[in-house]
Amino acid sequence: MGRVAGHPFLLILFLFSIAITPSIALPKIKHYKWEVEYMFWSPDCVENIVMGINGQFPGPTIRANAGDTVVVELTNKLHTEGVVIHWHGILQRGSPWADGTASISQCAINPGETFTYRFVVDKAGTFFYHGHLGMQRSAGLYGSLIVDPEEGKNEPFHYDEEINLLLSDWWHQSVHKQEVGLSSNPMRWIGEPQTILINGRGQFNCSIAAKYHSGSKPCALKGGEQCAPFIMHVHPNKTVRIRIASTTALASLNFAIGNHQLLVVEADGNYVQPFRTSDIDIYSGECYSFLITTDQNPSENYWVSIGVRARRPNTPPGLTLLNYLPNSPAKLPVLPPPETPDWEDFDRSKNFTFRIFSTMSSPKPPTRFDRRIFLLNTQNRLNGFTKWAINNVSLALPPTPYLGAMKYRLKTAFNQNPPPENFPSDYNIDIPPPNPNTTIGNGVYRFKLGETVDVILQNANMLNPNTSEIHPWHLHGHDFWVLGYGDGKFSAAVHGRKLNLKNPPLRNTVVIFPNGWTAIRFVADNPGVWAFHCHIEPHLHMGMGVVFAEGVEKVGRIPKKALACGVTAKALMKNPRNPKKTLNPKP
Amino acid sequence: MGRVAGHPFLLILFLFSIAITPSIALPKIKHYKWEVEYMFWSPDCVENIVMGINGQFPGPTIRANAGDTVVVELTNKLHTEGVVIHWHGILQRGSPWADGTASISQCAINPGETFTYRFVVDKAGTFFYHGHLGMQRSAGLYGSLIVDPEEGKNEPFHYDEEINLLLSDWWHQSVHKQEVGLSSNPMRWIGEPQTILINGRGQFNCSIAAKYHSGSKPCALKGGEQCAPFIMHVHPNKTVRIRIASTTALASLNFAIGNHQLLVVEADGNYVQPFRTSDIDIYSGECYSFLITTDQNPSENYWVSIGVRARRPNTPPGLTLLNYLPNSPAKLPVLPPPETPDWEDFDRSKNFTFRIFSTMSSPKPPTRFDRRIFLLNTQNRLNGFTKWAINNVSLALPPTPYLGAMKYRLKTAFNQNPPPENFPSDYNIDIPPPNPNTTIGNGVYRFKLGETVDVILQNANMLNPNTSEIHPWHLHGHDFWVLGYGDGKFSAAVHGRKLNLKNPPLRNTVVIFPNGWTAIRFVADNPGVWAFHCHIEPHLHMGMGVVFAEGVEKVGRIPKKALACGVTAKALMKNPRNPKKTLNPKP
Repeated sequence: MGRVAGHPFLLILFLFSIAITPSIALPKIKHYKWEVEYMFWSPDCVENIVMGINGQFPGPTIRANAGDTVVVELTNKLHTEGVVIHWHGILQRGSPWADGTASISQCAINPGETFTYRFVVDKAGTFFYHGHLGMQRSAGLYGSLIVDPEEGKNEPFHYDEEINLLLSDWWHQSVHKQEVGLSSNPMRWIGEPQTILINGRGQFNCSIAAKYHSGSKPCALKGGEQCAPFIMHVHPNKTVRIRIASTTALASLNFAIGNHQLLVVEADGNYVQPFRTSDIDIYSGECYSFLITTDQNPSENYWVSIGVRARRPNTPPGLTLLNYLPNSPAKLPVLPPPETPDWEDFDRSKNFTFRIFSTMSSPKPPTRFDRRIFLLNTQNRLNGFTKWAINNVSLALPPTPYLGAMKYRLKTAFNQNPPPENFPSDYNIDIPPPNPNTTIGNGVYRFKLGETVDVILQNANMLNPNTSEIHPWHLHGHDFWVLGYGDGKFSAAVHGRKLNLKNPPLRNTVVIFPNGWTAIRFVADNPGVWAFHCHIEPHLHMGMGVVFAEGVEKVGRIPKKALACGVTAKALMKNPRNPKKTLNPKP
Repeated sequence: MGRVAGHPFLLILFLFSIAITPSIALPKIKHYKWEVEYMFWSPDCVENIVMGINGQFPGPTIRANAGDTVVVELTNKLHTEGVVIHWHGILQRGSPWADGTASISQCAINPGETFTYRFVVDKAGTFFYHGHLGMQRSAGLYGSLIVDPEEGKNEPFHYDEEINLLLSDWWHQSVHKQEVGLSSNPMRWIGEPQTILINGRGQFNCSIAAKYHSGSKPCALKGGEQCAPFIMHVHPNKTVRIRIASTTALASLNFAIGNHQLLVVEADGNYVQPFRTSDIDIYSGECYSFLITTDQNPSENYWVSIGVRARRPNTPPGLTLLNYLPNSPAKLPVLPPPETPDWEDFDRSKNFTFRIFSTMSSPKPPTRFDRRIFLLNTQNRLNGFTKWAINNVSLALPPTPYLGAMKYRLKTAFNQNPPPENFPSDYNIDIPPPNPNTTIGNGVYRFKLGETVDVILQNANMLNPNTSEIHPWHLHGHDFWVLGYGDGKFSAAVHGRKLNLKNPPLRNTVVIFPNGWTAIRFVADNPGVWAFHCHIEPHLHMGMGVVFAEGVEKVGRIPKKALACGVTAKALMKNPRNPKKTLNPKP
């Protein structure tokens, strides 16, 4: 404040100029006050409890311009649970304590307390936010975060209209029961979702496309229901940007619109070489933008279908309509909804994924890496419990967040020995682990600040023979270049020299295909502690993640509230025996 | 340690003497390590999740002798919820931070963290423990706590055998959904319990006494099930002490044994003038011991029936067998189970309750009170939400526990204005509140240390005409004398002089009957902050409680972990910008 605050007129003028003169393009502060609580909701026409924000499910959409500061005052109105919110894809440069990952960047916000997230959204793109404690994302704690270019600047492509879709999957069993099942011996798997939700809306046990499918029951919807489909209204002969983000707990999705080709232009907040496709595979944690041209028969509407891939589906596709205005949305398309491609046609999935390249103007990766670590993904057992492990270490997050523990060098907070950087060279990824037993760990991969790091994600066979699953890995605090993919085991000699350094896409989430490998590169230039994990919620719950850290000594002042738990609280708390006067904490 | 630690031989001798020479009657330390987690369990033959301790439901029984120190290292293995445990009936003299009430005595224990409860059990009696955050008691977090007399000393009555019963009620709807319903507008009431549990065991949708009741389905139990009844094995011609404690969320229970009279000898850890009864009314939060003589036909077994009273019941009685050994427990009694008295025969309930008096040797109350406060119990509304209020203030517990906030004089932690000590003298308790709107508050009734306090609990009509319910009020940190009960409105002039100062029972829980009043007296001589609340879990959730405090300036060193939240954490935390060396908190 200072000088400006001393001159009320100037202050008013200053605020006024921010509010109404976009041509000046001053960064703004976007301020939100949110309360998180459980509420009754019928996301798929079946009443349940969801985690809502300010009475909404999904939570409110954040919309800002690149360079703006987003401030979210988050109050926990839950009765017994902590809460945090992770801003998926936001790099949090200079604000690693605002990354919203429990046990890593901050102490969970206790019931009744408020934590203020304050961070800069530094580039345009399609993002989302979600809970990152236990399985609160599965419980419905999520919403969209859309960043437009700096005011006065344009996207590198033209469009007339825009539609924003947040995709999720929904179970009728409570998340609390799901957690118990996953943590039980024998493990009880959560199974396939009951319903796919589009902007929090789906239909269970009925279909809005029933007339095309004998045996399915039509939905008796009037339109005002919480489960009424989110209709995509467009005008004919326009270019429409459609943003999709997947916050599924489990499902890999395929997105298609009847009669319309999709021109992909953005992935995870980074522009990509535009390419045309009939449908998009989108894994949990991924975001895309694509353009469509509404050049089809304007007297018709068209189906939008979102089906499950990569796992044997047991969930009907999520459906909605592309509604050519001024047609009534009640006018059903002539043709049935697009069919989701065969779930196990992984070649088709790879064909899509391998078409994604960065634009010419995108930042290029360093040509050499300083350090390369190999992360073997295996399903394991631990005393009969089922776990996922990386290099045979299953991640069990500690009660004290790493960021504070590392900044204040509290060595009891976690295992000071880094986890292994490789796995035995003779490990056979095509058979179940010969020694199925894993270990529990919470060590950290520490990088030198500025180091160029390659990570080779190596998939493998699961506990059962001839099984290997897709895992979408998400990195916090960084985008990374996807240098390549391959089947089988990565060999530095064979594959290392063939990596794509020319136009690798920049992303924050990347998939490993069954029995395959994926190579990524990033520069460890963001002081903080960052989760890198499978974005499938139950897999992370079962230990499928690692922790990266760099330059923690450069991290600035961490808010006290982010430290008020575990050994950081203990180390930083005075203990005055007989207070002589009132202590007055600043509010 | 010091000198003893310097002499290993002496130390060993010292420990040895504690362990094997009970005749010396040295107070012992009873040490427990507990882990709390949700687990699948079938308390009533229907699988659900319960909060268990060390894989058990109910939690392990604590058994100690008067004067012993109980140490419970409690680790929270829940994924997202905090946890605390309250030791119901234990006075916590000198250890108010171990009372285990979230928002009052301590910060909730965060997931993954451990808090050590350490307290002296200063007198013999029947107690129990339970969760005291949100509705975690309803979720199954409870167990028995039995204190025998100091070693070498005897109870003032003889018995040959002992049986310990913890009674509870059980819902199939998750506690998380129950909480959302109670907090919704319009409120959704939890309804009556599905099942009454005896030591965590009940039978839903079947009856072990089906042959006596046409229409009920017999249970197909083999005996090893989690829901198999807890059989009460006794030998013929013995005196058996039966301890019962009620940790019900809602239900007022009636306990009876076919063919056997009950001789009541203890209530809430205090001896009472023995009296004979056919059955016992027991309200949530109450404990009794009674003696039976197993002098009936030894070739038979006898039913034990625990039915719901005081609310229109919709729950079958909990049943088990008094099994005269060596009879098979499979041998069913000749006669049907005792019938639970009519639920709304409150005169019968009063007749039982009014028979409870202290023994001659019990401490007598001070003959005069220093301060008398009146607490009007009303059901109210707040912006359409349903609440319970005391003198028109509905308690909303603050995120910062009072004990630390008051000790460190952090005035922002709660409303510094005390709540009202009375209600309008013309308030008509026989009609719905004329102004149904209540206020939310978190102020504290502060007493001078050593002050003798009278509390007049005044019941009233609820929101609907002609309704008034029983509420069992439980006080933490104190026993109180029950000086009297009456119908209608308490009048100091009329009733004040008729209070029983001769042999009032000492208790920690007391009931107010519909449209009636109850007068209690206690000495505010225990430095700390203490909850006083309706022990019906959903009523407390809806604001039915108050907070008492006395002598907080005399409270000793509060463990840091009890303070590591809210404004106490903020006020007590240093914020070193650039740690020059490793901080080493003591473990």
